[in-house]
Amino acid sequence: MGEFELIARHFARAAPAGGAVVLGVGDDCALLQPTPGHQLAVSTDMLVEGRHFFAGAEPEALGHKALAVNLSDLAAMGARPLGFTLALALPAADEAWLAPFARGLFALADAHHCPLVGGDTTRGPLTLSLTVFGEVRPGRALRRDAARAGDDLWLSGRTGEARLALALRRGEPWARGELAAVQDRMDRPTPRLALGQALAATEGVRAALDVSDGLLGDLGHILQASGLGAAIDAEALPVAPALAALDAEHRLDCLLAGGDDYELLFTADPSAHAAVLAAGASAGVAVTRIGRLRSAPGWRVLDAQGHDLTIRARGFDHFAGA
Amino acid sequence: MGEFELIARHFARAAPAGGAVVLGVGDDCALLQPTPGHQLAVSTDMLVEGRHFFAGAEPEALGHKALAVNLSDLAAMGARPLGFTLALALPAADEAWLAPFARGLFALADAHHCPLVGGDTTRGPLTLSLTVFGEVRPGRALRRDAARAGDDLWLSGRTGEARLALALRRGEPWARGELAAVQDRMDRPTPRLALGQALAATEGVRAALDVSDGLLGDLGHILQASGLGAAIDAEALPVAPALAALDAEHRLDCLLAGGDDYELLFTADPSAHAAVLAAGASAGVAVTRIGRLRSAPGWRVLDAQGHDLTIRARGFDHFAGA
Repeated sequence: MGEFELIARHFARAAPAGGAVVLGVGDDCALLQPTPGHQLAVSTDMLVEGRHFFAGAEPEALGHKALAVNLSDLAAMGARPLGFTLALALPAADEAWLAPFARGLFALADAHHCPLVGGDTTRGPLTLSLTVFGEVRPGRALRRDAARAGDDLWLSGRTGEARLALALRRGEPWARGELAAVQDRMDRPTPRLALGQALAATEGVRAALDVSDGLLGDLGHILQASGLGAAIDAEALPVAPALAALDAEHRLDCLLAGGDDYELLFTADPSAHAAVLAAGASAGVAVTRIGRLRSAPGWRVLDAQGHDLTIRARGFDHFAGA
Repeated sequence: MGEFELIARHFARAAPAGGAVVLGVGDDCALLQPTPGHQLAVSTDMLVEGRHFFAGAEPEALGHKALAVNLSDLAAMGARPLGFTLALALPAADEAWLAPFARGLFALADAHHCPLVGGDTTRGPLTLSLTVFGEVRPGRALRRDAARAGDDLWLSGRTGEARLALALRRGEPWARGELAAVQDRMDRPTPRLALGQALAATEGVRAALDVSDGLLGDLGHILQASGLGAAIDAEALPVAPALAALDAEHRLDCLLAGGDDYELLFTADPSAHAAVLAAGASAGVAVTRIGRLRSAPGWRVLDAQGHDLTIRARGFDHFAGA
């Protein structure tokens, strides 16, 4: 048996019975049987060592995160996971890396009934590329272009902790607190799948996306796609205890432009307020109304007195800087 | 506009009207509407510079090949393409590379009505990861485990030219001939999509795969999955004119273990002989009966007198050697 087959063995598992998978890993293609009439939701991400994760990152957490960030895209669409593929370039076949990586990957896959249905493994600089598939009822997907002026702007969970974890790891001088309190928010994000599906089934919920590059930057995608603006109530933003020790400016930076949050940012008609809270409760995730959509383009961040705050935050561009 | 957005622009095109794409590039997920009742076929591949293609490879041909090898997996399943995703790591945003790469990629995508529906672009060592989706009628997919003893073994087109092109590029001493006569067989393989769909619709056609790692090595996958053996008639193997000048041993190596052929290898009940020829004719691809499946495990290669030939060829393992 070659090294190549040895690696493949870590990822070859029988497809679970009763799911959508007709034929799993091992043929030219996997075969899936989606629910009749449903639409297929597809998303892909690539993670490169040294760019999306530190060289030497703990492989079990990496296995979790690689899938989590993709599942988060399904969540943001309101889709139910069907399965995923994994393409993996590795510098060498290292059992001590592969075993925990597969463990982290499959623990999350199993928790969300999202089996691995196909893959490719090759030698190369450590790079992971996942593609996830889900299904959603026609017309129920939470698209970015579906927001309307007057919609409430909602956020699941809390933003900023992953950014603080990054700062603590890097030793950025403004960072305060214990890495242990926030590192899982960076290393093991929780895809909000149950919430996304509950929201897709809730009348009056309109646009959604997952916050991966910072709240304001990602809000901009909804605003651009929907041709709208927004006003955010800074005081309404939920603040994690770990962020309380930061100075106000860096705290706001973390909240509004942190990145790596994988929370859902979504809009809903004000009449859906109680239903949105109920969707959050059913999914076990806090949801907070943080602002409102407006006809006037651009975003504003307002303090408790309704005055504009100056925001220096900006989005994250994978090709910006070195 | 960031470098990142500049790159994304090369790949952002409106989804074609009338196809399966409900929502294309630009949201958290793409949305597709497969034909009701059909199964979804999915395959993924990763191509790494220096491993799957030469550093400095011509980008237009690379764009073609990256999609072609994935479409070939759909062809081998008998599936009709619905769309694909592309994850791309690039050392830098280089217009002179991106433009021809996108041209080669989209020319093939358009020819097969297989739109790009999602993607991810990041900085990193040049790596391409594609995932293709297709659809096939339930029960009609050409699976590797479907062969039966007594089936004819068929091959589309001809094998070996891509291997000769590699040898000429590398200057391997046994190689003879003009690179120009064979290089497109290595750089611009033709996915046999029309043939695969015609075969999936042909009664009596059973197992299939695409030959990417050499005929014998890939035949082994059908034999293993189906629990069978096979006898190949060496004299029946179609030989490209470019291989005629080689010594007999290297010619047979190219035919049986060349790699990068992307032809279909498939089995069919002998009663389907005429129907298989008709499927080939309808798809415009030559199909040749090259052997037969047997109950006894393993493969044999027989000369014109029915004697076993000694074959030194072996499969290609991406982790074998340096």
